[in-house]
Amino acid sequence: MSDLGSPSVRLRIDLGYDGTDFSGWAAQPGLRTVEGELSVALTTVLRAPDPVRLTVAGRTDAGVHARGQVAHADVAETAYVAAVGRTGRTPDEALVARLRGLLPPDVVVHRVYRAPAGFDARFAAVWRRYSYRIADGRAERDSLRRRDTVWIGEQLDVDAMSAGSAQLLGLKDFAAFCRRREGATTVRTLLEFGWSRGADGVVEGRVVADAFCHSMVRALVGAVVPVGLGRESVHWPAQVQASGERSSRVKVMPAHGLCLEQVGYPPDPALAARALEARARRDVPLAADSDAGTVSDR
Amino acid sequence: MSDLGSPSVRLRIDLGYDGTDFSGWAAQPGLRTVEGELSVALTTVLRAPDPVRLTVAGRTDAGVHARGQVAHADVAETAYVAAVGRTGRTPDEALVARLRGLLPPDVVVHRVYRAPAGFDARFAAVWRRYSYRIADGRAERDSLRRRDTVWIGEQLDVDAMSAGSAQLLGLKDFAAFCRRREGATTVRTLLEFGWSRGADGVVEGRVVADAFCHSMVRALVGAVVPVGLGRESVHWPAQVQASGERSSRVKVMPAHGLCLEQVGYPPDPALAARALEARARRDVPLAADSDAGTVSDR
Repeated sequence: MSDLGSPSVRLRIDLGYDGTDFSGWAAQPGLRTVEGELSVALTTVLRAPDPVRLTVAGRTDAGVHARGQVAHADVAETAYVAAVGRTGRTPDEALVARLRGLLPPDVVVHRVYRAPAGFDARFAAVWRRYSYRIADGRAERDSLRRRDTVWIGEQLDVDAMSAGSAQLLGLKDFAAFCRRREGATTVRTLLEFGWSRGADGVVEGRVVADAFCHSMVRALVGAVVPVGLGRESVHWPAQVQASGERSSRVKVMPAHGLCLEQVGYPPDPALAARALEARARRDVPLAADSDAGTVSDR
Repeated sequence: MSDLGSPSVRLRIDLGYDGTDFSGWAAQPGLRTVEGELSVALTTVLRAPDPVRLTVAGRTDAGVHARGQVAHADVAETAYVAAVGRTGRTPDEALVARLRGLLPPDVVVHRVYRAPAGFDARFAAVWRRYSYRIADGRAERDSLRRRDTVWIGEQLDVDAMSAGSAQLLGLKDFAAFCRRREGATTVRTLLEFGWSRGADGVVEGRVVADAFCHSMVRALVGAVVPVGLGRESVHWPAQVQASGERSSRVKVMPAHGLCLEQVGYPPDPALAARALEARARRDVPLAADSDAGTVSDR
């Protein structure tokens, strides 16, 4: 399970963050990243000799938020026991409390626990769900939500947006919505894509796929907004998809409207099989521009 | 309507703000305040020779937010016409657009328009509605809402909180929940006070009164939270109120959970009568520690 010198334990870490002030998830030298903050906190709590390395379900870009991010880390059993053994709480409560004490307020650890056998935050995931918030001309602009809501002055037709989105569902090549990368497949299964207007008037998109390539959700939203504005027909997003080519008429939407809400995993007994399957089908190990565990053969 | 040298127009300004980085509403030398920012923007747009002065419905404290704040300003008719007359939009749309261009992102002007005859943002108001958000042990801590939500680890009994709150309704002396001020009455009419748990698990209070004295909502919430935690009976908040004395067992809750949601005014024809009535009954003109237009005779 790890290449550490002593027996190790794999920890599953569920967390959320306000992405506003982060240069995304992935650790980068000299930049403030979620992975960087979490790694420092874990390394401190566990008194690890080397920085704790993390594997994540969704490698969010700069400015993108998360409520339901999932990561894992392999840590030395002895360090884990020592870190959690000094309090009256359960080991996992103790670890959450200690991490919360170290992390900045824009990162919140929800739960930490020993992962079930075969768990892999990235390769065992079977779906990722994102939301995208847009306050249009019909919604009141709420300064308290300005960090996670895109404001546009015009009015959106939510039914038209949902109709246009529905035509993208299924197993397809989403090359038109992905940044091209040598050797990386762009075939994904889009499981849900719809829009609704909340009680506060804000238009919210719900997007679920087995995995997403880089900036794919923001490009998908960018293909559907012109439909909502009446500038393109409800068939246009599907036509863009079918073309297989990125279109200059599809604007990649701003990062701050996007939030990773939830990651789905199979039941525990099926975890190992799922991770093996996803690993076997991946093309580029640890692809830096994708949260994809499942990507098809080239 | 004003003491300006030329004919004036009274503008009603509806706005919201994220109070996190403000030292409250009221302008104070050397501090960043909402009134200060709005006054500077209005003065610029109207090219006013002197800073535009504002009157507000709710003088929120440092860190308190607003979605439905209402203010008014008396400005020279000529300046108003000049400011809005240069675009193809309606005067009020033009003014909103120009103010939005000047204001920082944590203040959002929703609407600006000529107030109806007799309107006074403070003295014509008949009620103010506030919300208070608490994420307890049953709610997920959402880092994206950390600016407007108080986090507590224990679990709250929402029904008990509502039962305790209900006993405070009506015309009463709320001295036990007000910072004492020489000569200022503490009699208010509490119109609504209840609690519910939202879809996100967050416990939200809804508090409506004709007016509030300084830090009154935060003290009311502080009296009800111990009921929700099972530490006090549902009768305790009413006992505190009846005592007429501040209790050290009532903790004034943090500012950042509080938001001014809405201000109620009578129908236009009744505005002038309401403002006259409230002015006649006020005790301290422009009381610096209260949003009260209506306060009873001493």
